[in-house]
Amino acid sequence: MTDIALVTGAYGSIGRHVAIALSHKGWTVHGVGHGSWGVEEQRAWGVERWAENDVSLAALRSLDTRPDIVVHCAGSGSVGASISDPYLDFRRTVSATADLLEFVRSECPQATLVYPSSAAVYGIAEQFPIREDAPLRPASPYGAHKRLAEELVRDYARLFKLNTAIVRLFSIYGEGFRKQLLWDACRRISADETEFFGTGLETRDWLHVSDAAELMICAADNAGPHCPVVNGGSGVAVTVADVVGELFDLMGKNDRPVFCGTERHGDPRDYQADISRAVVWGWQPSIDWRAGLSRYATWFRKECGLA
Amino acid sequence: MTDIALVTGAYGSIGRHVAIALSHKGWTVHGVGHGSWGVEEQRAWGVERWAENDVSLAALRSLDTRPDIVVHCAGSGSVGASISDPYLDFRRTVSATADLLEFVRSECPQATLVYPSSAAVYGIAEQFPIREDAPLRPASPYGAHKRLAEELVRDYARLFKLNTAIVRLFSIYGEGFRKQLLWDACRRISADETEFFGTGLETRDWLHVSDAAELMICAADNAGPHCPVVNGGSGVAVTVADVVGELFDLMGKNDRPVFCGTERHGDPRDYQADISRAVVWGWQPSIDWRAGLSRYATWFRKECGLA
Repeated sequence: MTDIALVTGAYGSIGRHVAIALSHKGWTVHGVGHGSWGVEEQRAWGVERWAENDVSLAALRSLDTRPDIVVHCAGSGSVGASISDPYLDFRRTVSATADLLEFVRSECPQATLVYPSSAAVYGIAEQFPIREDAPLRPASPYGAHKRLAEELVRDYARLFKLNTAIVRLFSIYGEGFRKQLLWDACRRISADETEFFGTGLETRDWLHVSDAAELMICAADNAGPHCPVVNGGSGVAVTVADVVGELFDLMGKNDRPVFCGTERHGDPRDYQADISRAVVWGWQPSIDWRAGLSRYATWFRKECGLA
Repeated sequence: MTDIALVTGAYGSIGRHVAIALSHKGWTVHGVGHGSWGVEEQRAWGVERWAENDVSLAALRSLDTRPDIVVHCAGSGSVGASISDPYLDFRRTVSATADLLEFVRSECPQATLVYPSSAAVYGIAEQFPIREDAPLRPASPYGAHKRLAEELVRDYARLFKLNTAIVRLFSIYGEGFRKQLLWDACRRISADETEFFGTGLETRDWLHVSDAAELMICAADNAGPHCPVVNGGSGVAVTVADVVGELFDLMGKNDRPVFCGTERHGDPRDYQADISRAVVWGWQPSIDWRAGLSRYATWFRKECGLA
């Protein structure tokens, strides 16, 4: 009998990459969360059993699974939506994590829990690259709730001796991502639009989702009741102008982007991870941002019949 | 038309004192929470309207009240219960606070919100008296959840410009309290028992509930989006042995207590508040612990037909 991994939110962009990575390492992967997919697609992503349900205590118990590892990818995913509906964001991120922790505490206290948090917990940082011990001053309900969920995980780890680890993800992207900057930019570029939000000088730290999935598994190996926290980024800050400019080239366009200068509420201007802690664990990113963008643009062109 | 105050948990030991104190200052007090009491008793405690219900967003909206001040006394109240059922403690403290914050944000964003937290957020302190900027290392789910609720209040205050204040209550007591140390001790003493938990050397900072209620109202006057935090204690540390010894005298017994030495899981040994911040606001405790214990013992004897 192989060991069982439970991935919440396994249908999501990040969750499915975690599922396939665990599956490749020999885990039997069970998934729970929202999203409707056929058995063939589930299997293609390494998911052996799928329960379409909320991540609630009742739903988790009804799975009848006692996992050895849990990666809690379910949760809210949008800064903007968290500002217009903070209460929903709270429930998706904080309440769901409380339910998951109670499930682990009461049903499988030996399991290892990895919580993918977000660099949004840092808010507007003062020093770059951002270290894990930097002050946490989230600038949106999304970031604030991720921070609360982190603290809940840390408290339960300490008080109930649960093996846990937290990975603060920076800008995760990859083939198949149908939202966020790369998707929006490729769509605009393919429609011959040249105008973009922001100043273009904002920086982001891009990490390919397959590297993020490997880091999550690496975090499980390093988990404990002390609940270590690691940044999940590449360590490299790239301006939005550079990313969008590169996408223009990759999409075979000679135009250049024009930035309208509007700032996005709740989004800090800059992000850059200090990844030395994760590197000490033996992990490192394998796909640099230019190679990753190239893969993304190839996928996008094929996806939209432009190839 | 007078201004409206909403007191959640107004049936509770602390909530009813907040309600009557607000009523004496001219507020029209509405209450919501659990507890069944007759209209006469509600009125005696200054509660004009009472809704027996959960502190959920739906229940709060159904009150059809737009309060000018909210004092959120509802929440869990036991360290021991939080260890055996942390999930229930989370919902009573953290989830209920999220619901209340959403109610305030969406229905009455001009209202002032006072959150009575607990000294349990400090956990095992290193320096006494404990200042509000001391590290927060709660030693129980009760303390951990109070800390999370505090942070939720602080985040919402900052992100949505809500006027808020937090009061960290130490050992609150008063006539009518039918639980915790004083109640248990009086019961044992009146039954001629002499054995007590702990070493007797533990210290607590006792604050009479009427002083705590005044501080909560004072906190409302000092509330803002910066969400000030003040300790609610007397500033005086008294050993459990001294408190219990005093109660033996007040109950007219010549026996002395014997302490069995067992420590209580999740309860820090010592508490003593630095109350200089609250004093700067113009508040100070009016009932010292000996006078307060005398009032308590008189009430207890009458209550139990011993007077």
